[in-house]
Amino acid sequence: MTPPPGAGIITLTSDFGLEDSYVAEMKAVLLSIAPSARLVDISHRVAPQDVMAAAFLLERAVPWFPAGTVHLAVVDPGVGTGRRAIVAWARDRFFVGPDNGLFEPFFASGEISSVFEIRDPRYILSAGSSIFDGRDRFAPAAALLSRGVDPAAFGPPVEDPVRRSWPEPRVAPDGAVDGQVLAVDSFGSLVTNIPAGMLPEGARVSLEGREIGSVRRAYADAEPGAPLALVGSGGRLEIAVREGRADVRLAAGRGARVHVAPVKV
Amino acid sequence: MTPPPGAGIITLTSDFGLEDSYVAEMKAVLLSIAPSARLVDISHRVAPQDVMAAAFLLERAVPWFPAGTVHLAVVDPGVGTGRRAIVAWARDRFFVGPDNGLFEPFFASGEISSVFEIRDPRYILSAGSSIFDGRDRFAPAAALLSRGVDPAAFGPPVEDPVRRSWPEPRVAPDGAVDGQVLAVDSFGSLVTNIPAGMLPEGARVSLEGREIGSVRRAYADAEPGAPLALVGSGGRLEIAVREGRADVRLAAGRGARVHVAPVKV
Amino acid sequence: MTPPPGAGIITLTSDFGLEDSYVAEMKAVLLSIAPSARLVDISHRVAPQDVMAAAFLLERAVPWFPAGTVHLAVVDPGVGTGRRAIVAWARDRFFVGPDNGLFEPFFASGEISSVFEIRDPRYILSAGSSIFDGRDRFAPAAALLSRGVDPAAFGPPVEDPVRRSWPEPRVAPDGAVDGQVLAVDSFGSLVTNIPAGMLPEGARVSLEGREIGSVRRAYADAEPGAPLALVGSGGRLEIAVREGRADVRLAAGRGARVHVAPVKV
Repeated sequence: MTPPPGAGIITLTSDFGLEDSYVAEMKAVLLSIAPSARLVDISHRVAPQDVMAAAFLLERAVPWFPAGTVHLAVVDPGVGTGRRAIVAWARDRFFVGPDNGLFEPFFASGEISSVFEIRDPRYILSAGSSIFDGRDRFAPAAALLSRGVDPAAFGPPVEDPVRRSWPEPRVAPDGAVDGQVLAVDSFGSLVTNIPAGMLPEGARVSLEGREIGSVRRAYADAEPGAPLALVGSGGRLEIAVREGRADVRLAAGRGARVHVAPVKV
Repeated sequence: MTPPPGAGIITLTSDFGLEDSYVAEMKAVLLSIAPSARLVDISHRVAPQDVMAAAFLLERAVPWFPAGTVHLAVVDPGVGTGRRAIVAWARDRFFVGPDNGLFEPFFASGEISSVFEIRDPRYILSAGSSIFDGRDRFAPAAALLSRGVDPAAFGPPVEDPVRRSWPEPRVAPDGAVDGQVLAVDSFGSLVTNIPAGMLPEGARVSLEGREIGSVRRAYADAEPGAPLALVGSGGRLEIAVREGRADVRLAAGRGARVHVAPVKV
Repeated sequence: MTPPPGAGIITLTSDFGLEDSYVAEMKAVLLSIAPSARLVDISHRVAPQDVMAAAFLLERAVPWFPAGTVHLAVVDPGVGTGRRAIVAWARDRFFVGPDNGLFEPFFASGEISSVFEIRDPRYILSAGSSIFDGRDRFAPAAALLSRGVDPAAFGPPVEDPVRRSWPEPRVAPDGAVDGQVLAVDSFGSLVTNIPAGMLPEGARVSLEGREIGSVRRAYADAEPGAPLALVGSGGRLEIAVREGRADVRLAAGRGARVHVAPVKV
């Protein structure tokens, strides 16, 4: 089984922000090793050390990239504690980052078929006494993967990658669905873990016991300032406020309980 | 009349911010369809749903890009209401986005010669029940235009594109000019709609009745903390404060009235 | 002596922020003149007019870029005052920007071997009455350098470039080191001017007279919320707080005094 050739695209996701030189240092290494790589930022404004938020961003963005894309992500609360650095191979794409559950959506979906530790010193930059894994360990691996290096070349297989529990909605016998808010986007909309396919026509949505109403087709179907439920562009139920922020208006955030009542006949 | 070949550059302008995956999803689609496109962000930090602010950014930035550049812009308060998605062809460049006046400066200047609706389903990504026009409709069109697809291929001509009134300065018989603040830049400077060519030598500027003084050549011509009038890099009269923010210091913003008194002989 | 061929990479550093079109205008000019250049942002969120902060970012990021990279930087409090625009040639890389000490780290290290003023009008864009040096003067020069134009082509040599005093640590006869905080990164960590090589094993660090402790290997070596000293990824002593901000917790910022006590035998 041979990995697909790199499409030449490398994405970057981190909590490094845009003020410092960290992202530029990673890009410098990427372009030094893979001069023709195309670099695309997913986001560098993940909340500090929020692994789940980064996993959620990756889950949304990754499927849109062409086969062979390498996804480099660094949200890494365990840096310096001996947590492993990994390369994961998922069908037609690659992931590079810390072994901390950042790629959970692709483990949960069964897409990731093999994981290797980045340990071969030939592939790790040595920067003296100081270490910046994003630059010294993940960037070289991502660049080499995009040039076609086999993921198995970086080190031994990892049989027990760190997993996170990724909250899945539950469906009751009567068809009711219980889920939760997975993320709040920058417009303040509450993105749930309930996929569109679990929403029967006419289903009514409530948030923490508060009635939101039936699933609408567009923002324009609500009054300005009013909350509404709709399927967001990621294919999931979202709760939003037209011309406002749902997180503020409804005082809700990640983990808030969402209930979809079965349609009464 | 054949459109110019794409220069391979696609610019992106939106109010999506840099926290979420929306911009990355659009870039993924752009690079999937036009793998050698060069992507340049104009800004993704347009104030939410502020079509005029985005139009102003485009007016400034667009002229500097080479012929054949495709400009993709999404500031779209009417999403989901049936507003049209359009491709506009302006001499040697293309625009792609919602039909809501976002490209008004290029309509006003007479540069846009034809407009087509994006309607041919072959050119629209289908993402199931959820739709994100930036990714599913505008990005494919922008990528295809940059690969040389004819703008007329996307759908029927639009004879009545949505127009906005773009505030133009008025010149009085005695040579006085009345204009207004079009935008506040991130340094707090007030950018007016008065072009440099309307400023006679020695003209004196006032803002909401408050005297600012004659038009200076550079920031250094004012005392620190003092307001001054000068021609900004966009070729328009600006009111700034040296080492400070004019918007705060002068308590003024978009729409504030600006008067240029005629030179007394 | 011939300059190295451009690697095709041009980096951009400024205090222009991400709201306005300034950065996009520079990129438009860069790609108009050097269509195959690879553009990499170092940061555009340098604090307004903070030349030292930009110099610090450049010092960190520049060494990671491949030979031939052109570094364009615009943090320019003196714009409009007649300060010179320069091109500096440092071994295997180039710098373009205002002559105000922005490139001080590479002067201090002796890397910059020659400096030329950008004065030849053939290489300066003329935008009528308004001037934006980043776009009209620096971007064309950076693009031309990346295409192999000789730095001497832009204008006369500059024998007396503006220098800044770059704070260097002092080592006492007993081995104690006195330094200071050079920068605060976006995580709130205090980056000092003391290189790892000046830190004897077991050295104890204090900040403004407050004991921080010995130099640790990783964040995980401190309790959550506790300050610690460690060598940062830039190869310098840093003072950080695990899961917190050192600048807030220790009420310290740039210029704060840092002392490294000699190891007692």
